[in-house]
Amino acid sequence: MMFTEEHIAFRKMVRQFVDKEIQPYVDEWEAAGSFPAHDLFPKLGALGLLGLEYDSAYGGQDADHLYTVILREELGRIDAGGVPMAIGVQTDMATPALHRFGSDDLKRTYLAPAIAGTAVCSIAVTEADAGSDVARLRTRAVRDGDDWVINGSKLYITNGTQADWICLLARTSDEPGAKGLSQIIVPTDLPGFTVSRKLDKLGMRSSDTAELTFTDVRVPVTNTIGEIGRGFQQQMTQFQNERMSAAYDRVGGLQQALDRTRDYLKQRTAFGKALIDNQHVAFRLAELYARLDMLRQYNYACAEAYMRGEDTTRYATVAKLEIGRLSREVAATCLQYHGGLGYMEETWTARFLRDMTLTSIGGGADEVMLQVLTKLDGLHT
Amino acid sequence: MMFTEEHIAFRKMVRQFVDKEIQPYVDEWEAAGSFPAHDLFPKLGALGLLGLEYDSAYGGQDADHLYTVILREELGRIDAGGVPMAIGVQTDMATPALHRFGSDDLKRTYLAPAIAGTAVCSIAVTEADAGSDVARLRTRAVRDGDDWVINGSKLYITNGTQADWICLLARTSDEPGAKGLSQIIVPTDLPGFTVSRKLDKLGMRSSDTAELTFTDVRVPVTNTIGEIGRGFQQQMTQFQNERMSAAYDRVGGLQQALDRTRDYLKQRTAFGKALIDNQHVAFRLAELYARLDMLRQYNYACAEAYMRGEDTTRYATVAKLEIGRLSREVAATCLQYHGGLGYMEETWTARFLRDMTLTSIGGGADEVMLQVLTKLDGLHT
Amino acid sequence: MMFTEEHIAFRKMVRQFVDKEIQPYVDEWEAAGSFPAHDLFPKLGALGLLGLEYDSAYGGQDADHLYTVILREELGRIDAGGVPMAIGVQTDMATPALHRFGSDDLKRTYLAPAIAGTAVCSIAVTEADAGSDVARLRTRAVRDGDDWVINGSKLYITNGTQADWICLLARTSDEPGAKGLSQIIVPTDLPGFTVSRKLDKLGMRSSDTAELTFTDVRVPVTNTIGEIGRGFQQQMTQFQNERMSAAYDRVGGLQQALDRTRDYLKQRTAFGKALIDNQHVAFRLAELYARLDMLRQYNYACAEAYMRGEDTTRYATVAKLEIGRLSREVAATCLQYHGGLGYMEETWTARFLRDMTLTSIGGGADEVMLQVLTKLDGLHT
Amino acid sequence: MMFTEEHIAFRKMVRQFVDKEIQPYVDEWEAAGSFPAHDLFPKLGALGLLGLEYDSAYGGQDADHLYTVILREELGRIDAGGVPMAIGVQTDMATPALHRFGSDDLKRTYLAPAIAGTAVCSIAVTEADAGSDVARLRTRAVRDGDDWVINGSKLYITNGTQADWICLLARTSDEPGAKGLSQIIVPTDLPGFTVSRKLDKLGMRSSDTAELTFTDVRVPVTNTIGEIGRGFQQQMTQFQNERMSAAYDRVGGLQQALDRTRDYLKQRTAFGKALIDNQHVAFRLAELYARLDMLRQYNYACAEAYMRGEDTTRYATVAKLEIGRLSREVAATCLQYHGGLGYMEETWTARFLRDMTLTSIGGGADEVMLQVLTKLDGLHT
Repeated sequence: MMFTEEHIAFRKMVRQFVDKEIQPYVDEWEAAGSFPAHDLFPKLGALGLLGLEYDSAYGGQDADHLYTVILREELGRIDAGGVPMAIGVQTDMATPALHRFGSDDLKRTYLAPAIAGTAVCSIAVTEADAGSDVARLRTRAVRDGDDWVINGSKLYITNGTQADWICLLARTSDEPGAKGLSQIIVPTDLPGFTVSRKLDKLGMRSSDTAELTFTDVRVPVTNTIGEIGRGFQQQMTQFQNERMSAAYDRVGGLQQALDRTRDYLKQRTAFGKALIDNQHVAFRLAELYARLDMLRQYNYACAEAYMRGEDTTRYATVAKLEIGRLSREVAATCLQYHGGLGYMEETWTARFLRDMTLTSIGGGADEVMLQVLTKLDGLHT
Repeated sequence: MMFTEEHIAFRKMVRQFVDKEIQPYVDEWEAAGSFPAHDLFPKLGALGLLGLEYDSAYGGQDADHLYTVILREELGRIDAGGVPMAIGVQTDMATPALHRFGSDDLKRTYLAPAIAGTAVCSIAVTEADAGSDVARLRTRAVRDGDDWVINGSKLYITNGTQADWICLLARTSDEPGAKGLSQIIVPTDLPGFTVSRKLDKLGMRSSDTAELTFTDVRVPVTNTIGEIGRGFQQQMTQFQNERMSAAYDRVGGLQQALDRTRDYLKQRTAFGKALIDNQHVAFRLAELYARLDMLRQYNYACAEAYMRGEDTTRYATVAKLEIGRLSREVAATCLQYHGGLGYMEETWTARFLRDMTLTSIGGGADEVMLQVLTKLDGLHT
Repeated sequence: MMFTEEHIAFRKMVRQFVDKEIQPYVDEWEAAGSFPAHDLFPKLGALGLLGLEYDSAYGGQDADHLYTVILREELGRIDAGGVPMAIGVQTDMATPALHRFGSDDLKRTYLAPAIAGTAVCSIAVTEADAGSDVARLRTRAVRDGDDWVINGSKLYITNGTQADWICLLARTSDEPGAKGLSQIIVPTDLPGFTVSRKLDKLGMRSSDTAELTFTDVRVPVTNTIGEIGRGFQQQMTQFQNERMSAAYDRVGGLQQALDRTRDYLKQRTAFGKALIDNQHVAFRLAELYARLDMLRQYNYACAEAYMRGEDTTRYATVAKLEIGRLSREVAATCLQYHGGLGYMEETWTARFLRDMTLTSIGGGADEVMLQVLTKLDGLHT
Repeated sequence: MMFTEEHIAFRKMVRQFVDKEIQPYVDEWEAAGSFPAHDLFPKLGALGLLGLEYDSAYGGQDADHLYTVILREELGRIDAGGVPMAIGVQTDMATPALHRFGSDDLKRTYLAPAIAGTAVCSIAVTEADAGSDVARLRTRAVRDGDDWVINGSKLYITNGTQADWICLLARTSDEPGAKGLSQIIVPTDLPGFTVSRKLDKLGMRSSDTAELTFTDVRVPVTNTIGEIGRGFQQQMTQFQNERMSAAYDRVGGLQQALDRTRDYLKQRTAFGKALIDNQHVAFRLAELYARLDMLRQYNYACAEAYMRGEDTTRYATVAKLEIGRLSREVAATCLQYHGGLGYMEETWTARFLRDMTLTSIGGGADEVMLQVLTKLDGLHT
């Protein structure tokens, strides 16, 4: 993976932006349980960060995928995991299918403001009774002339209290299972749409998460992304972006956590020597650095495959599985090695542990990743 | 380990008390960042639960150690780890040395009300710059006639904002390292004592934790527990009680967490079957139940050895190490298997993860346990 | 677990016997791929070691179960795992059902010489196409008057080339699955019995393992142990003895391996210090000692429950699972910490690794233990 | 990593050669405890496989490093780990320093026949009392006119009984520690050179391993590779090749082991279904495939960095550490999932476990890798 001068300059620019426009505010946003998306996203949009690989016809940068890798690594360094997650919803979860499969009209109306940051968007798949098993989804869009009439509810929706529009996965026919699902863009200012609950999470607290209710919400059928009945397949491709993006994030975030811990352990002494000079401690950190290094290179290999147009399902799945484990281990180790101090909310390690715990759940649980891999590896009769 | 009818009746009584007097209030106490020790402790005292093994001359029950095992297992089932921890400070951390080494006078004045629950007490060892390495402790008691004049500060003090008296480990001479430390009882209503900070912790939030400052606090030299200069050794024996007690707790707490998770997984379905019927999930829980079973029997062996009067340092150390790991794994697995729901603060799993994270730190970090074991096992030249 | 003076004297006696009569010969037996059961077993029998808990009417010692615990711990210290395994087949695998369920006649004819050591016996359950799934067993005993006529073959039979009689699990009716199986004693000097193959194993090489073939072998129906058609249930109880016995063994064997490794690491130096003074190494050994300590106490709790007449299925299953993992880790660590020397067959670590690898397979694979535990723990709908 | 058509054709050629010229004979070589290097190496040499990246002036192929990656992946598939290891000694351990630092004369005399396969070579670093701590090396070369006079002995020398010349690391001055070491080529037909012992190893049995003794062996000082006194540094660069090569091997070998196990588990049934259809089993294999995939991509990233001329110490160290763990887990799992059959020497799993156990020791133990990483990561004061 060779980054060009342009890539390196881009990284520097993102880091400066993060340090100036985001880091000083995250404690406040965490306490508030929400960050101001309508303030922050236009700034990101102005720098082109919300549409790096998107078509310039809609305000995108037509940039290569390495810019996304760099952006995510740098966002991963933010001191509150909720912020990069919320940005990732905008760029890698709610819009890729629209960019890939949406009509020109839909893209002008919904993608362009999302890229500009003037519209905030969400992706709504999960329901109370259906997480990874999409065949159980019950939110339904019934056709009435040229409209869909939507009823149901969606759970764990990131950006849910602030979204201007939602990429909704809904059942549009009675075909069983994954068939009969479609992706529909739903503006949130329509009658019948309500945020029924704001959820109180263990971590990722600067990012708002909501339960949404749809009661006879009416949108034009032309708001359907791509083909009617292909929503599941389209969502599956979108999941790959989410997972890759999550894996890129972690390289930045875990590197920073390990570096901070190393630096702390160099300063702190006990029993007449710096804590880092305990071989047990140093070797443990060396192990974690080693695994991080393998993840980084795996991400880069994934990015290169993606740029060659290959199917990256396997990369995305393996990386997603690995970040679940590695995030948990790094977060627990960093907290542990800070001792009592690490258990205090004043120390970054407490929030980091809370935030990182979502990694094995969000974007498909570890068990779902393993299920996908058994298929890719032919581990069944 | 054969429990008698009396033991079994005692367990039932404790469970009823917990269910009636504690469980209904813990959410409120968690939100408040403190539980009302001066309300709860007298109730515990009235039932004899604060002095099970203590001398009846001071209000104790003269009961055998199995009652302690049972009490802790049942307290471990409380839905907020802070409450059993705070009770444990009263019974197994702040008072054992006083009971073992204190003068009759000291015991009448300080132990008796602690057993009755009318006085709340704390143990103060750790300082900002000295955790496990007690040789670095700087809080100093200088003799002035028949008084000690105490200066310094102590960190991470459980019950610290509510304590009526404190079992303080302070430096009473210039001898280096562990020598020259003494245990002194310090009432908190004396001039010069201040709660300098209430700490905001990742978990155990129903238990208040404080930083305490001592400025020319004056107590009689007769407040010294046992011998002057033997404070370190006395504290070391007290640590064994803390560690054993923590290990007993976990058997109750982890059992309940696994049972709850099992029950949830039996109800929740995905892909046409109950989640528990995923072999991967069932086997993982079976592993954790197996480890818990080994811990339980190890605790019982420890209790029997303790009752025979044997040194239980090895038992306490091994069990403390194991509960650190097992608590982390159980808490992470329970949360993980609840999926998105498990990440919500409304679900017990979130608090449980936050609480359990302290296990590897409090009462001596895992690394300290390993260090103790290398000595016990002769793993050095 | 309090051992009496008699227990302690017994341990000493066993250890002396092992050191004198077994240890000096094991290298030779390993090279030969077999130990001389007909020489060794009479010596063990003369000391009462082949029937510790068996009825004195048949030559047993009527001793308590702690003697078995001690015997197995001491045999576990033998420098070749095949020898204790072969002895265990005689005492804990091939004879418990006979002792429990057999007729007086059968016991006089077969159990008494097994206890005396004048007869060597085997247990024959597994077939080429059926390991843990006994429903698939095909060896069949068809009734012809007062005889069974037996046809089929059995695989992985310990003591198979030397056995005088075999405790055979065979299908005696057409009822499906586990029903219709019976335990039958088959002397090996009958026409139609052949040792079809001696097997070449990774480890446990001092113990001979064979494939046995039965071609119209004719034995009296009175050779059936207990009830016809109850063979599966009887064998299941016998499996508990095997698993408990295996767990007791490991405490002796793993303790010795860790002690030897510790002693080696104290002598060997690199980079200016003894290897043991590497904290990483010392802590790793401390972890393994800690787990061993938990196993030991768990075994003792199991033994006590067994002596109280309780069902020890759960204990036996948990312990069997744990020894699989712990044996692998201890063996790998001991070899690893000996460096290049550890990889040489001249060093004990190589054989130890080869022997210990069987632990997770023999007596029921880890996966079978987990399956049993899911049932005991209610981990299914 | 994009392989060209030429690379792909090369892989096919190597695989055919392996299948035809090596695989049919490995069982025989394993039994013999040695493979016929003087028969096999000329064949490899004729195909250019012993000097892929070496200068064509000496018979090398001037090929890029990807050919080495491919060669090692394919050799890793050989059913006896000793053979690829012995070839690796020739190509990646005994000759890289000679190629990099040797004089033209030395290269014509020693490198050219090694590339042709007409000479077999060894690398001799380790001594009985010094493994990773080279400062303790005692084999000494004392200058006498234009000759070195060599005395000492070397241990664990691969190809040691067959070698025509040896790349020896010896002490050539009294400077302490790593200083004062030089690399010297020693032909084995000289007076004073003896193979003092052929070693009996746990695995890698088709590769002969020897102890070598040097008694007043006299070689010209011009046999020194590179600079006198720079032997340690030169050897360190050579170690990187060894470690990279070992990591490339494993991708081939572990892939094949997992594939074979998967295929076996698809055929073998128990309890009414194929073993692979046990979720626990399938998920475990999926995990191992995932880790293998990360290793493969990490190797490719390493190879690319190497081709760009970067220092690959970090890559080589991380990969070496990872293959130690992954090889052990894969080998243990493959054996375990074959059940009793897996424990038989007739099944590939037994030899595979024996062979793979060397991975964490040879080429620098895991603990040495961790030590290197603590330096690279700044994990010390």
